[in-house]
Amino acid sequence: MNRDIKGLASQMTLEEKAGMCSGLSVWHLKGVERLGIPSIMVANGPNGLHKQAASEGINMNGATPSTCFPTAAALASTWNRELIHEVGVALGEICQAENVAVLLGPGTNIKRSPLGGRNFEYFSEDPYLSSELAASQIQGVQSQGVGTSLKHFAVNNQEHLRMSYDAIVDERTLREIYLASFEGAVKKGKPWTVMTAYNKINGTYASQNEHLLDDVLRKEWGFEGVVVSDWGAVDQIIESLAAGLELEMPGNNGLTDKKIIQGVRNETLPLEVLDSAVERILELIFKHMDNKREHVTVRTEDNHALARRAAGESIILLKNSDGLLPLPKNGKIAILGALAQNPKFQGGGSAFVVPTQVDIPVEEMKQLAHHGDLIAYAPGYAVDTEEVDGQLIEEAKQVAGAADIAVIVAGIPDGFESELSDRRHLRLPYNQEQLIEAVAAVHDKVVVVLMNGSALEMPWASSVPAIVEAYLGGQAIGGALADILYGEVNPSGKLAETFPVKLEDNPSYLHFPGEGKRVEYKEGIFVGYRYYDTKKLEPLFPFGHGLSYTTFAYSDLKLNTASMLDTDTLEVQVTITNTGELSGKEIVQLYVKDTVSTMKRPDKELKDFAKVDLEPGEQTTVTFTLGQRAFAYYNAELKDWHVESGEFAIMIGSSSRNIALQASLEVHSTVALHQTFTRNSLLGELMTNPAAASMLQSLAQQFQAAMGISEQDEKMAKIMQAALATMPLRNLVSFSQGAFTDEMLEQLLGQLNGHH
Amino acid sequence: MNRDIKGLASQMTLEEKAGMCSGLSVWHLKGVERLGIPSIMVANGPNGLHKQAASEGINMNGATPSTCFPTAAALASTWNRELIHEVGVALGEICQAENVAVLLGPGTNIKRSPLGGRNFEYFSEDPYLSSELAASQIQGVQSQGVGTSLKHFAVNNQEHLRMSYDAIVDERTLREIYLASFEGAVKKGKPWTVMTAYNKINGTYASQNEHLLDDVLRKEWGFEGVVVSDWGAVDQIIESLAAGLELEMPGNNGLTDKKIIQGVRNETLPLEVLDSAVERILELIFKHMDNKREHVTVRTEDNHALARRAAGESIILLKNSDGLLPLPKNGKIAILGALAQNPKFQGGGSAFVVPTQVDIPVEEMKQLAHHGDLIAYAPGYAVDTEEVDGQLIEEAKQVAGAADIAVIVAGIPDGFESELSDRRHLRLPYNQEQLIEAVAAVHDKVVVVLMNGSALEMPWASSVPAIVEAYLGGQAIGGALADILYGEVNPSGKLAETFPVKLEDNPSYLHFPGEGKRVEYKEGIFVGYRYYDTKKLEPLFPFGHGLSYTTFAYSDLKLNTASMLDTDTLEVQVTITNTGELSGKEIVQLYVKDTVSTMKRPDKELKDFAKVDLEPGEQTTVTFTLGQRAFAYYNAELKDWHVESGEFAIMIGSSSRNIALQASLEVHSTVALHQTFTRNSLLGELMTNPAAASMLQSLAQQFQAAMGISEQDEKMAKIMQAALATMPLRNLVSFSQGAFTDEMLEQLLGQLNGHH
Repeated sequence: MNRDIKGLASQMTLEEKAGMCSGLSVWHLKGVERLGIPSIMVANGPNGLHKQAASEGINMNGATPSTCFPTAAALASTWNRELIHEVGVALGEICQAENVAVLLGPGTNIKRSPLGGRNFEYFSEDPYLSSELAASQIQGVQSQGVGTSLKHFAVNNQEHLRMSYDAIVDERTLREIYLASFEGAVKKGKPWTVMTAYNKINGTYASQNEHLLDDVLRKEWGFEGVVVSDWGAVDQIIESLAAGLELEMPGNNGLTDKKIIQGVRNETLPLEVLDSAVERILELIFKHMDNKREHVTVRTEDNHALARRAAGESIILLKNSDGLLPLPKNGKIAILGALAQNPKFQGGGSAFVVPTQVDIPVEEMKQLAHHGDLIAYAPGYAVDTEEVDGQLIEEAKQVAGAADIAVIVAGIPDGFESELSDRRHLRLPYNQEQLIEAVAAVHDKVVVVLMNGSALEMPWASSVPAIVEAYLGGQAIGGALADILYGEVNPSGKLAETFPVKLEDNPSYLHFPGEGKRVEYKEGIFVGYRYYDTKKLEPLFPFGHGLSYTTFAYSDLKLNTASMLDTDTLEVQVTITNTGELSGKEIVQLYVKDTVSTMKRPDKELKDFAKVDLEPGEQTTVTFTLGQRAFAYYNAELKDWHVESGEFAIMIGSSSRNIALQASLEVHSTVALHQTFTRNSLLGELMTNPAAASMLQSLAQQFQAAMGISEQDEKMAKIMQAALATMPLRNLVSFSQGAFTDEMLEQLLGQLNGHH
Repeated sequence: MNRDIKGLASQMTLEEKAGMCSGLSVWHLKGVERLGIPSIMVANGPNGLHKQAASEGINMNGATPSTCFPTAAALASTWNRELIHEVGVALGEICQAENVAVLLGPGTNIKRSPLGGRNFEYFSEDPYLSSELAASQIQGVQSQGVGTSLKHFAVNNQEHLRMSYDAIVDERTLREIYLASFEGAVKKGKPWTVMTAYNKINGTYASQNEHLLDDVLRKEWGFEGVVVSDWGAVDQIIESLAAGLELEMPGNNGLTDKKIIQGVRNETLPLEVLDSAVERILELIFKHMDNKREHVTVRTEDNHALARRAAGESIILLKNSDGLLPLPKNGKIAILGALAQNPKFQGGGSAFVVPTQVDIPVEEMKQLAHHGDLIAYAPGYAVDTEEVDGQLIEEAKQVAGAADIAVIVAGIPDGFESELSDRRHLRLPYNQEQLIEAVAAVHDKVVVVLMNGSALEMPWASSVPAIVEAYLGGQAIGGALADILYGEVNPSGKLAETFPVKLEDNPSYLHFPGEGKRVEYKEGIFVGYRYYDTKKLEPLFPFGHGLSYTTFAYSDLKLNTASMLDTDTLEVQVTITNTGELSGKEIVQLYVKDTVSTMKRPDKELKDFAKVDLEPGEQTTVTFTLGQRAFAYYNAELKDWHVESGEFAIMIGSSSRNIALQASLEVHSTVALHQTFTRNSLLGELMTNPAAASMLQSLAQQFQAAMGISEQDEKMAKIMQAALATMPLRNLVSFSQGAFTDEMLEQLLGQLNGHH
């Protein structure tokens, strides 16, 4: 519907306008009844809907049940844009049914440290993967006429002092890593709203950060929606509005209104700024109204089935020695671990969802086994403690001893991993580690299944033949696990984050969680595999890793050119063949490496990926298209993405550490970098300049003579040449004992710069 | 002699004064004949004297021969303050004989990256060790009435773009690492001069860096000597003088004089600044004149013997499986490697010394063997190439095959390691690696002797039972090696730097040698073992490592207190016993660890060391005294060293990775940190404040009630508590739906800050 938003806004009083810029309550925006502007509702999520009654404050237990889909950490492991879109569609439908205008998510912050308490809510350590998947989820939700709130913008990577820390990040790192993770999601997904983070970035709160909100988000990325604060993230509303935020949440009974009114009256807040904020909020409100569908019924059964399918595709087969998995359906299986009876399938905090039902892994295993009594269960540990219970372990060993194969379900229970607190280490609770060691000592066919929100250390990894990573897989994880373990579903998930051997290996280790409120991102762009691969540091399991019950072959890598301008696009083709006995899906990953660069660049960077589904013997050709951005780094001086001319490698692989095929091409920059010479420019810099080179040759000879070095002394001449290359021009004066003067230098510089 | 320097200066014309601030020539200062001010000479070194005739420019081949002592990298491995003092005395005597006023050294920059081309001229990756040893050398030289020039001040850690790079280093890292390495040397050694580096630090050339030259060097450290530029390091002489530099080198035939005169005339240079510079230079000149000794004879034979002794104590026994070393004097020994005939014993560049004689390892081995013909030699490789010569390797294998033990002398030949260029990798030349692999494949008793300036990768290390690190050991290294290999001297050197497994492990790897001219020291204080130990990254050989032909036991660690103020001193006692069969020296290392800190601190830091000499069965008690500085970090906000109250560990060990004994104590800070609360202070910060805590308790209860959380809901209450702790005070307003106002917050802040 075409609405006259400006006309409507012009009818509003200053008080009404001011009121639009903060909530009515915790979850509602204000409306203006006399003008027919309704009060709309927003709600938490985003791997389900967490809708509370208005009166409940932020208490979390009383929300309406909703299908709890896999968390972002799990969804990301699918690397499946279409599937995540489908989950988004289901979420949008749920919101329609509940009359929720905006679902507060997805979150697309970078997993800087595996300790981060909200990592389970985020997708990846890689900004490209993260932004692609967030875009899919946004598009899915919004296809149902429901808005999203892409969060937490930006550089929100820890819970420690989360409302006050100041992230000190250089511009290149911001652009290439932390903002890039939002950039693609904003440009491609076009979220109705973006939610600011609690923290500061380079000294300024995200909620009043003009560089982020106005320069980058609005002007560069073209964001047209509403910027909403995280709940309680606004410090100074006037500065926030000026910086580009429109909506402070939650409501505070008019205190913010008063500040805005006062700001307009004392002219610290230009009326145009307020007007523009109000218009954007009205756009949002009426976008919701115009897209509202009545009498939507939630398809709870279908949604649970989708949750199971999504979870199945998110599960990662990390290790499978001697093809221990899939399990034989007629085998005697011991299921050990309390989490098999009481699965961990979501994290705590604002992302908490009251599920519609929960699949119990042990029960689901019984469903798929030939007979239910082939499955024996023992808890092995208690979930609410780290203390070893010797009796539980003994019992588990006995149950394992009577089985052909032992499946241990382990993970990070509630209270160890949540919003509000970062983890303190990457280990499983001590009693769970002890269970694994004890069972592995008496049984050689052990499968460990993991339920956790982020990377784990696994000192026991070499003692067990098979490891399955289930992350926090949503309410249907029990069924999905049974599907994977019994081979009903062929595993096709891959890690969207590196699992390091030990916490200390992580690039942020020395700088996390900062000193006082200051958190310096000194590892810069070297986050995740960018660090491990560049430092040649062996991870436990690399980024992009995940096994299948079938095998795939990579062949026929073809580039459509061997040389291109940075304004051209590159087509990359590669053929994938299912060479095994089962149908299965493979995630084909494309990495780019700048072979030689004056800038520090990672060993490789993910620039595209595709998930293909192949029957045994089937093959397919995947085509990737790369533009300038795939080769560029962010040049902070140019304030733009820049490609350095030279050789690049195109790598195709099944993980960041398993590159199957590689090809190289030349990319030529079309950007001319202007160079001005000064007295401190180096002779070597001039040597690369054709106009200056000849002038220099004779200068260098004179100089060498003045230094008492004969042309015959080759060794000294070579040393002198090296010395001269790194010598500033001013040293022509200081080293020539008066033969070359400052005036001569000025003249030379005039000539040199005149040539440009 | 008491001289009236001020009176003398007052007789000088402006032109004469201006003239004092730059050289007469490459190596001489200007004098003023009519006032009896002589022109004095300075000369390169510092592990020998490199004195050139004035007419020779900087050409290096024509210098007067001088004993070439071990380079700083080798001397540092002795960890012997007295021995380095003794070398200093010999150097001072040589300078007296040659009428050299100032020996241009020692260099005490930190070995940030093992690639650094001048690392062999520097002592260590550890600032304490580095500054202690530099101070000893300075004191030794200056005890002979000859000045030193402590260089290169500061942050001179690479040759790549060495005259123009800009080192971006945070203040804490500067103080704790890069400046600390100079601080002890300046305070304890009191060098006559300090030489500025070529590079910039945080945007300003070292030669015009007021923070470094004036704030830190003069005002904080009390330096009273002359600041001289490295040759060609001055950009703008007026700014340099204003920043605290006195002398520009080399001379440029009066061009600098003119600029100074003009500066005084147009008042860009205050006359007092010039006067003070001139007075300091006059002090230097007459310090030389007053300490000048006539008819000093250089004791060339004694100096060679000292060079041999120093080299012997610098050699490090890195590995000695099954006690392969020392060699039996009646054994048939194959000496392989061209460097055994033509040893690498010093680096290239300004530190190059024309030696008085050179010990040839093969010949020295023959001297000590029972019969000279027990020693067979084969070159194995050519030194001027990396190309493998199959015939040379075959010959070496044959010679090895006929011997009981094969000693391979390998190293980094000329041209691979030098001033002006950084190394590109840490490997030996390829042909030398191939020789080692080939011989190790056919002989199981192989000793590898290494001659190199800085850390090496040793992919072959596990294939050979013994490794001896000789560094660049000076002209007597041949004899010293024979002493060590045959057990005439028991090895007692220890590594003053970490040898990493691979280059990529080095903390500066991702940031070295920078992007363009910008070099960011993003690894911060985590340099050398501070990084490896904190990251739990296994090195090839750790800092402080070195074996002996005897064994030592550590016992009876005693602290004189278990609790102290940061203004007290701690006495640490430990007993060392020689538990082996041979007399030998042990380097006892004391490290301190801050067990819990809000600041990022290294796993441990060297705070003292002692070298003890013990007969078999003998024991001795070493006493260390630690003051505030041993526990402090540099607090950039306080602009001072600060100790955080809490537990510290005192660790005593034979290397950074071999801690034998450990004790803990409490240190209490006497510094009260002032705290002002603002609307963005955290509730958690208030909770630690007794006055505020009670006020808060009732606030929190009200707040919890307002949020709809009952006191009975323990789980939610716990979450709320965590949330509240990290919540800014302003959120009392934004979350209380109007119940708590900004005015109430202002009032609360007034009360809180009033309590202080």
